[in-house]
This record gives sequence, structure tokens and C-alpha cells, in this order.
Amino acid sequence: MPRILLGKPIIDALKARSLERVALLKNNGVDPALAIVRVGARPDDLSYERTAIKRAESLGIALRLFEIEEDAGQDALMKAIDEVNADSGIQGCLMFRPLPKGYDEEAACEALDPRKDIDGIGRAALARVFTGRGEGFAPCTAAACLEMLDGYDVSIEGKRVVVVGRSLVIGRPVAMMLLERNATVTLCHSRTANLPSVMRDADIVVLATGRAKAYGADCFREGQVVLDVGINVDADGNLCGDADFEAAEAVLGEHGAITPVPRGVGGVTTSVLMKHVLDAAERCRQ
Amino acid sequence: MPRILLGKPIIDALKARSLERVALLKNNGVDPALAIVRVGARPDDLSYERTAIKRAESLGIALRLFEIEEDAGQDALMKAIDEVNADSGIQGCLMFRPLPKGYDEEAACEALDPRKDIDGIGRAALARVFTGRGEGFAPCTAAACLEMLDGYDVSIEGKRVVVVGRSLVIGRPVAMMLLERNATVTLCHSRTANLPSVMRDADIVVLATGRAKAYGADCFREGQVVLDVGINVDADGNLCGDADFEAAEAVLGEHGAITPVPRGVGGVTTSVLMKHVLDAAERCRQ
Repeated sequence: MPRILLGKPIIDALKARSLERVALLKNNGVDPALAIVRVGARPDDLSYERTAIKRAESLGIALRLFEIEEDAGQDALMKAIDEVNADSGIQGCLMFRPLPKGYDEEAACEALDPRKDIDGIGRAALARVFTGRGEGFAPCTAAACLEMLDGYDVSIEGKRVVVVGRSLVIGRPVAMMLLERNATVTLCHSRTANLPSVMRDADIVVLATGRAKAYGADCFREGQVVLDVGINVDADGNLCGDADFEAAEAVLGEHGAITPVPRGVGGVTTSVLMKHVLDAAERCRQ
Repeated sequence: MPRILLGKPIIDALKARSLERVALLKNNGVDPALAIVRVGARPDDLSYERTAIKRAESLGIALRLFEIEEDAGQDALMKAIDEVNADSGIQGCLMFRPLPKGYDEEAACEALDPRKDIDGIGRAALARVFTGRGEGFAPCTAAACLEMLDGYDVSIEGKRVVVVGRSLVIGRPVAMMLLERNATVTLCHSRTANLPSVMRDADIVVLATGRAKAYGADCFREGQVVLDVGINVDADGNLCGDADFEAAEAVLGEHGAITPVPRGVGGVTTSVLMKHVLDAAERCRQ
């Protein structure tokens, strides 16, 4: 059986470090605060929001919620983002996406002050991920993948990594971050031919397609490390990842490792969000 | 023997289209002009400059040369870039890199007006290449690779592409442009393990490392398409690519194809530069 890479030890370690940093910031007169901008009330968003509120509370990070009615329109959203930008007491902002239909998501992403863009939604942050130049935060889920690998001492340098999915939220940024760490990275997607064979060539596989249990035994081989970033609901209404977990588990063997869903990468993303708030708060102080 | 993919037919086709566009622009009262900013007098830069001057002349594009002494310093360079930015008669600018020692290249790249950044040196342009959002030009050499593939009817969709080299001038941007066209892209570099084996898995190989004749028979297989972007000088003082051309030629077979050095991708880069000047000029007019 492969190692099951739970998020909890990583979350605990990040929490310990964050508590120290919050204490230091408060000693220096800075009260770190996170803004959440939510348009409408999608169950996914509400679920993540509850987790974020709890996590922020447990760390002593203030949370400011900007709730916008689903039919309020772009102007109301832009006004909320302007408020976030103007409020020097808010150091970081998470805006739930995708936005409901009719909203200009790109305009909203670009409107957020890049210094407060702690989830890497704007071009400035993404340019930083791509070029290594300038300032900006990586998308939290992409950063959470690296926290998992580092936390579990999985070496990245020189390893073959296959990333399945090319979104700007996870696939493309995590590919660039792993490249920066000297992995040999292959970006795969819905048009990739012979995907199972490409996946089997990898030392590390990152799944980020949002396709429930879509990757089975033929996609894995013994000894691989699998990071499953998908959060899906299966036919029985249960949370599941992109991998067919049982099938993968059987193939990966004792030298392999896999993150479960839930209790894998997902919760680490929230920890990274808090870490980024503190990074932003420390930068403000400088 | 593989097909030898010469730059000339692509250059000729781009020239014909560019001549039409210049005529149309001039009819509308716009005189397209390219600025070249050169610090010092590196032979490589002078060689490219001569080609660019000839090419611009042949198209009726004006050329404005900003020559800066090697020891003039950052302020002199920034002043030249400010002049380029302020001059509405200049629509595009090429700045030779790397800059001599002591210059802050990043600051210079960021100082250039993104609308005039026709070689994709600034973060705004690179963000566009990475995200597909916003405005901006891709680096000309990366764009030249796609012109070659398209011009020779090499299909990209679903193909496995290996890019060797991860610079921001060519490796990373061309990888993103090929991904955008639905290739499955692997980014390789000096830390890649078993590089020859990884290269042999590809349908299309892009070589962009600047290592003279470094990739031999073991790196290729029958039927591959090889784009050799390297421009190097071999031990005998002759221009050569990153591939060991004769060795590759022998392996690729009649279904394979390779770009020679010189007379391959290099000249197409200059054509793309002119194309981008015209794109920029047409945008100004709008």
C-alpha cells in the first residue's frame, strides 16, 4: 500500500509557524486581516468560506466578508474590490470564482490591488509565477502542492512531473513552480493523446481536471507520487478526487504515495491562503 | 533524408503579406517605424541589426537606431527608452539583450511601453503569453517557431512536444504557445534526467539551449520534426545549431524534418519582428 499523504501534518506545521508570525505582527501593531469577496451563494464557496473563517479565527487573523447578491451586477462587485483596495487594514483578499454568469471575471481579477492578490488571480501575480520576476503571490492551490511535496520530503529536482489540467488556477502555475524547482514538467490536458501512457512515465503526477474518479489503474505505476487536487462529487454524492483512489492505491505500491480527497491538498490550500495574508501583512510593514 | 525546413519560403510569405499591410498603413497616413536600442557593439547584435535594417528597408518600414555606448550607464539607456515611449512615430522597439554588465536589464525591460514591446521582453507581454489574457506580443523567436510549423503544415494539436531550454526568450514562451495550440508539452533543461530518452518520445522537438551541436543521434528518432533555434559558433568558427545536424539528419528519416542553422528559424525571427511592428502600427491607428 502507498503512503497516504494527509493534509493534516502540513496544516499543523503551517499553523504553528503562522501563530508565531501573527504574534509578532500584533506586537508590532499590525492586525492581519483577510477579505473574502463572494458573489451569490454557491455551496462550494460557502463551504470554503466556513473553513477559511474557522482557520482565520484559530490564528487570530481578522476576516472581513464582502457578500454580494448574485444579481447585484458588476458595478457592485467592482465597488467591493475598490473598498478592499482602499482599506489599509486589509492585507489580502480572496475572491471566489467562477463568478456567476454575466460578470466580467477578468476585469474583477485585474481590479484587485496586486499587493492584496494573495490567491494569484491577476496578471501581475501570474506574470511573477511565469517569469520569476517582480512581486506577487502564486495561486494558493498551486502553492499547496509544493507545500505537500516539501512537507513529505518528496524531492522535486530532476524528477519527471506530469500535470494533468492546464487552468490558471492550478495546472499552469504549478507546472511553472515545479519547473522553477528543476523538475522536468509535462503539461497534459483533454487533447493529450495516450494520456495514461504519458502519466505512467512520471515520477510525480498532479491531477487537476475536476473529473471525478477519471484516472484509473492504467494511468499509474508503482512508486509514483500522486497529488490529487480535484474536489468532485461522485455518483453517490460523496466527495472524491480526480483519481480513482482505490485503483490507484492498488497500483502505486509501498514506494508510492497519494493524497486522498477529502483530507489531502484541499485543506492545505486554506493554510497557504493564511500564510499569504501574513506575507502580505509583513510586506506592508516594511 | 528528412525534409530540410528552410526559413526562406516562410520569410517570403511573411514579406508578401507585410508589403500589403505597409501599403495600406501608408495609404492611411501611418508610416510604420521600428526602433532598435543597442548598448555597446556586440558582433551578434550588429549582425542581427544589419539584417533588421535590410528587412525593414525592403518593406518600407522606417528604422530608428538608438546607439548607446557600452559604458554610458543605466540612465542613458532609460533615457533612450523614454524617448522611444514618447515618440508617437515609433510603434515598436527591439532592445538587444543581454545588456552589458552593470545594466539593470529587468528595469529596462519594464520601462518599455508594453504597446511597443514587440519582442515580448516585459512582464505584461509575458503575462499575455502565459495567461492568454490582456494585450502583448510574444517573443519573436518563439512566434517564429509557430510560423515555421504552420508554414510547413506541421500539425500541432495533440502532438507531443519537447522543448529543451527554459529561457523567457524562447523556451518558456514557445511551450505556452504550443500548449495554447493543444500540444502536450514537456519542458526540459540542464537538470533533466535521461534527456535523450525524453527527447525521443516527442513528435516535435524545439532546441533552444545555445549549446553547439550538443544533441546527437541518441536524442532523435525517425519521423520527428526538429526546430533548432540555437545560433552558435562551432570549433571551426562556423555557425551551427544546438543539434548535431548530420547526426540528426541520419536518424530522422524521410518522414522527419529539421531546420538548418543558418537558413532556418533565425531569419524568420526578423520577419516576425516586422510583422509585430505592423500589428502595433495597426493597433495605434484604431
